Amino acid sequence: MAQAVRIGIAGLGTVGQGVVSIIQQHSALLAARHAPIEIAAVSMRDRSKARKVSLEGIRIEDDALALADASDVDIVLELIGGEDGIARQLVERSIAQGKHVVTANKALIAHHGDALVAHAETQGVVLAFEAAVAGGIPILSTLRHGTCANQISRISGILNGTCNFILTTMEQEGRDFDDVLNEAEALGYLEADPALDIDGIDTAHKVAILAALAFGTRLDYAGVDCEGIRNVTLRDMHYAAEFGYRIKLLGMASFDGRYLHQSVRPTLVPLSAPLAGVSGAFNAVQLHGDAVGDVTLEGRGAGAGPTASAVLADVMAIARGERPQPFGMAVGALIQADRSAGALQKSAYYLRLNVRDEPGVLAEITRIFANEHISVRAITQHEIMPDNTVQVVVSTHHTDDTSMRAAMSALSALPVNANPPICLGISEGE
Amino acid sequence: MAQAVRIGIAGLGTVGQGVVSIIQQHSALLAARHAPIEIAAVSMRDRSKARKVSLEGIRIEDDALALADASDVDIVLELIGGEDGIARQLVERSIAQGKHVVTANKALIAHHGDALVAHAETQGVVLAFEAAVAGGIPILSTLRHGTCANQISRISGILNGTCNFILTTMEQEGRDFDDVLNEAEALGYLEADPALDIDGIDTAHKVAILAALAFGTRLDYAGVDCEGIRNVTLRDMHYAAEFGYRIKLLGMASFDGRYLHQSVRPTLVPLSAPLAGVSGAFNAVQLHGDAVGDVTLEGRGAGAGPTASAVLADVMAIARGERPQPFGMAVGALIQADRSAGALQKSAYYLRLNVRDEPGVLAEITRIFANEHISVRAITQHEIMPDNTVQVVVSTHHTDDTSMRAAMSALSALPVNANPPICLGISEGE
Repeated sequence: MAQAVRIGIAGLGTVGQGVVSIIQQHSALLAARHAPIEIAAVSMRDRSKARKVSLEGIRIEDDALALADASDVDIVLELIGGEDGIARQLVERSIAQGKHVVTANKALIAHHGDALVAHAETQGVVLAFEAAVAGGIPILSTLRHGTCANQISRISGILNGTCNFILTTMEQEGRDFDDVLNEAEALGYLEADPALDIDGIDTAHKVAILAALAFGTRLDYAGVDCEGIRNVTLRDMHYAAEFGYRIKLLGMASFDGRYLHQSVRPTLVPLSAPLAGVSGAFNAVQLHGDAVGDVTLEGRGAGAGPTASAVLADVMAIARGERPQPFGMAVGALIQADRSAGALQKSAYYLRLNVRDEPGVLAEITRIFANEHISVRAITQHEIMPDNTVQVVVSTHHTDDTSMRAAMSALSALPVNANPPICLGISEGE
Repeated sequence: MAQAVRIGIAGLGTVGQGVVSIIQQHSALLAARHAPIEIAAVSMRDRSKARKVSLEGIRIEDDALALADASDVDIVLELIGGEDGIARQLVERSIAQGKHVVTANKALIAHHGDALVAHAETQGVVLAFEAAVAGGIPILSTLRHGTCANQISRISGILNGTCNFILTTMEQEGRDFDDVLNEAEALGYLEADPALDIDGIDTAHKVAILAALAFGTRLDYAGVDCEGIRNVTLRDMHYAAEFGYRIKLLGMASFDGRYLHQSVRPTLVPLSAPLAGVSGAFNAVQLHGDAVGDVTLEGRGAGAGPTASAVLADVMAIARGERPQPFGMAVGALIQADRSAGALQKSAYYLRLNVRDEPGVLAEITRIFANEHISVRAITQHEIMPDNTVQVVVSTHHTDDTSMRAAMSALSALPVNANPPICLGISEGE
């Protein structure tokens, strides 16, 4: 039997307790899978908090940084969170002390991943973060192992369970965004700062990490074009359904060998596409490789069990003696991609205008599309509303982002608008 | 840069050519991913066959066994196929000569995997077979890496693209089994021996391999309860759709810590379940882990690109210095599970009887269910047929296999049968 690997767990919240629980329940299984694991120490901010797991026989530190210095710890698990502060200090110090680090912290990796991994490389240790993206879905190990012989051209997914829960509940129960948001908050589904979830920031962190690993490009979190779900309405869900689509918050990245395009935005997905069927708190990721074609992975994106499962997958790989490269190649080999210019980003679009019911409105709208050389697929004027306005729904053929922004700007300036126009992407149904 | 790993490719059919093509196209990518690969030699039965790839500069052997003996080969790729014969000889000899082996051969592994892996262990080499199960879907590396901290209780999937193509085409185009089978044959979708596909044998090979890796149990191919798709009719597809189900050929394995249950059979899957949406030549695998919950992977199950992608995933892991254990643990640590007795296997069932339209028929049928203590969920007698028979469709609540077999035996003996009764499983919709 292999020698036990000794871990120190920083942070004993939901995920930390999940890790302790699995190790305590599955010690024989982990040992048989060639990775006996021993919890040497844990650190927590508040010892008095009630916890669901027994810590008998485990050393407790008040200061997380003590784990970085502990001589009986081989791998430090950073489960504190936050892109800076103590989480970052702990990871840096652990690496400096020659310890492997496993983290579930997407914000930290999205912002500082290149530098941290470079530091880990010089120290000859592993920095692993499977749990940072899509919880229990093993997408990082899939990119590193399963599809590593492929040139990946696109990766997209539903990467935030809270947003997907909100959108699914709105659609299934016919309830407004604010209403369901309040329920999600009451259920404890939201981050301390709800903007991380609903403004798409959490998804953007994950997109940046996925892109780096999928394409071998340097992390570029700042380059993610990001829009959340605050403006998604039931009305748009209904119209989307009429077209045969469902609205999902999609994170997407594509790379053509030079230009990297990364976005987060509410998108119409065809009902027949695998991503359309992903409901509630589930996540899914879809990639396209030149040899393998489309591969889709679906599973739980958050929660104690799924996230702890992913954390331990990394711990066990290290325990088995594997030394995975976090981005699938040396940091120095990652390409500095150009950010895709708007003129190169093409998508079909869904637009909805709420305008006063006046003669010539449709002519004004269609003239704007014509001016921007945007090819309209369909335009529908819906029944008149009680306030004497009408809903005009437009779907376009493939259009570049620059033209669409210009059109949106012109449409927004129309004096007949009763409300600002809405613009959502339409996915090809990959 | 790491030293190039040198491979010898035995068999230059579709998959072998796919491997050559990826290596030639992606040499820089593979090198950046820390696994430069060099093709030292290939072997083929017939040099005169036209091939889509250039073999310039590559040594060609007529005898595959020469690769096992070649001093310039580090990894032998067995892409010949067949559970015995030259494929098995090559794998055994390569291992004996201290070479790593990568194979796409599910029949070989399902029948001889334990012995071959034990041999590889004593020789200190890797035997890897990601491509043997579900083509481009990285299910084996997911079980070995992504979900390795879980106790897996169930794994199921659509594992044969040819059967799934036939079922999907029957349903979508309203065509009979024999008709679509002929088309599949003309398209070259069928194995040389079509029984391997349509009688479920290929799926059973994959189920046995998945079960061993998922549960840590010894391979038990002979223990797979196997039924193919020859008896699936359009009529049953229609009735299934009325219930909200779709018929899929499901491979399934479950393990409760003692009893192993493995089966292949046409099964009614709820239309809302991820597996119901898997169409055409696609494969999908779903597993349930105690920490991670349900995880579903979908992708192409066959073809040059997807299969070669999986073969190279194994090659690159070895090239990076990883030494994965084929079954996730040492062969000696695998549990000898008991085969699940029929009384322990529970499922809901769909039955269809085609009987003469006589008084008392429904009473006779329901009496048989009552005798076997089978709880009927619904029973429907459909409109009378031109031949004066009726179709009686029954769905049951959870029932054990032994009772259902007894009921089927009694139902088959009814003198009113116009045709033998049909019995299919109903999936819970996991």
